[in-house]
Amino acid sequence: MKNYCFGIDVGGTTVKLGLFSTAGELLDKWEITTRTENFGENILSDICEAMEAKLAEKEISLDDIEGVGIGLPGPITNDGTVLQCVNLGWGTFNVEEKLSEMFRGIKVKAGNDANVAALGEAWQGGGKDYDDIVMITLGTGVGGGVIINGKILTGYNGGAGEIGHMHVDDNETDSCNCGRKGCLEQFTSATGVVRLAKRLMNNTDKETKMREFGENITAKDVFDLAKEGDAGANEVVETMGTYLGTAMSHIAVVVNPQAFIIGGGVSKAGQFLIDAIKDKYRETCFAACGDAAVHLATLGNDAGMYGAAAMICK
Amino acid sequence: MKNYCFGIDVGGTTVKLGLFSTAGELLDKWEITTRTENFGENILSDICEAMEAKLAEKEISLDDIEGVGIGLPGPITNDGTVLQCVNLGWGTFNVEEKLSEMFRGIKVKAGNDANVAALGEAWQGGGKDYDDIVMITLGTGVGGGVIINGKILTGYNGGAGEIGHMHVDDNETDSCNCGRKGCLEQFTSATGVVRLAKRLMNNTDKETKMREFGENITAKDVFDLAKEGDAGANEVVETMGTYLGTAMSHIAVVVNPQAFIIGGGVSKAGQFLIDAIKDKYRETCFAACGDAAVHLATLGNDAGMYGAAAMICK
Repeated sequence: MKNYCFGIDVGGTTVKLGLFSTAGELLDKWEITTRTENFGENILSDICEAMEAKLAEKEISLDDIEGVGIGLPGPITNDGTVLQCVNLGWGTFNVEEKLSEMFRGIKVKAGNDANVAALGEAWQGGGKDYDDIVMITLGTGVGGGVIINGKILTGYNGGAGEIGHMHVDDNETDSCNCGRKGCLEQFTSATGVVRLAKRLMNNTDKETKMREFGENITAKDVFDLAKEGDAGANEVVETMGTYLGTAMSHIAVVVNPQAFIIGGGVSKAGQFLIDAIKDKYRETCFAACGDAAVHLATLGNDAGMYGAAAMICK
Repeated sequence: MKNYCFGIDVGGTTVKLGLFSTAGELLDKWEITTRTENFGENILSDICEAMEAKLAEKEISLDDIEGVGIGLPGPITNDGTVLQCVNLGWGTFNVEEKLSEMFRGIKVKAGNDANVAALGEAWQGGGKDYDDIVMITLGTGVGGGVIINGKILTGYNGGAGEIGHMHVDDNETDSCNCGRKGCLEQFTSATGVVRLAKRLMNNTDKETKMREFGENITAKDVFDLAKEGDAGANEVVETMGTYLGTAMSHIAVVVNPQAFIIGGGVSKAGQFLIDAIKDKYRETCFAACGDAAVHLATLGNDAGMYGAAAMICK
């Protein structure tokens, strides 16, 4: 194994780049803008330029680089083919081959960003003591990643770990972004928690301090109020926790992980959130699969870079 | 690879033994009684004796045997440790080491019977065109097995694929054998279908020919009547199909298989059953994971032997 590798997390707005030691230390990180114009034709060349500049700055030879891992916001097959990255403007091509050609033949591994973040947490974050984890990212949407024996489970067409779109409610009337109704994401993402809060405020006359925030209430406000003992906010958190805990019990009987790692903006609510979901998970889950640890993610926005590096040097 | 291997499926009543070519052909099969008395202390020696006798009968040398695969009715860890096989009277021990010692140092691989049957179907049965399948066995209970890249997904403590105990109904008042309420098995096993049929007969005054069977109605009766157009029986099948199809959509967003293989006694209802579950699966599933093929299992009671052999020679 050589001494260094790059771990790159490509988002729709910025590309996060990390220079890692292959032992797992993040040595330097920086960002560049994601130029999505003209079907994102500059994205890979911008990344190559940024890496070349970093090698020059640090006086590191390319011979000392083990490879480049890259996380992308869309489904990727096992052979490195991007099926469609709508946020980047990309169509279908083999991103591993393309980036390798552009960066002097270096080894490249590509993965879906949510899966790659899960691998990052499994390598150096909240899941580093475990081989088999499921990560659940509660952000604007809900993402997921399944890590088995320390490797990403991709699934047949890159859809493994798409647990934000698990169907959890037959009676939901609002549509999810995916077009279906009743997806986990509609109840447990930051947006979903706000939706539950507004629904409670609009459809009941319960007294709750959430009303002081009105239409601008955020998921953080809901959790802050719940921690202070506000009954309405606690009802929202309990509903959210019931959906998520039950979904975790579904996941557990399929892949039986050692640990669930909970990340994303909503996870800043901390142990209070973990407590809200853990009990429901244990309560609904088949006993043999119900004892997985439930931890917070620890790498924050760096998880994608860590996971990208892990695809190369873990 | 040597020319032959044994595939053995140990049940609570009989042990099914198969002699296979390592190319995947079942050359001979036979059964012996499972002697569970005295904590099942004779089971492994009975199996060794049966294999020795078969080698003598066929004039095959042990040097020509690649190994022995064995499926067992309980959770097995990746290293071959049986955690508890209550139906056999066994406690916790490493069955691979034990059987190898008893059978002249031969290579032994052990697995959970439901997982092993899934591997059998993936190797030579309904899933033989696919690398990633989930098998669902609808028998007295509901078992499952997840095959990824042609290998059994065991899970942290052998619980992967325990989908019969996925929690699918919050309002169920009857208890499952596992102690929880609302497990998939309670609605989709042979017993579960009968339970749904009796519930319809007892709680409604719907006209249905199911009433002619009364308390002795079987899952086969329900499916036969449904095929004839009986409205009550079709309502039962639809309810069953809704639970199973929705559970399949849960499974699909976790592991994204290429195909689901449906086996067990209830699957004798054939394509009629597949149609009843497939639509609901496609309807509730996230589009990217909703296009898995849904096929009937083809190996019947031999699936366990095939899968046991596959652990050795696939």
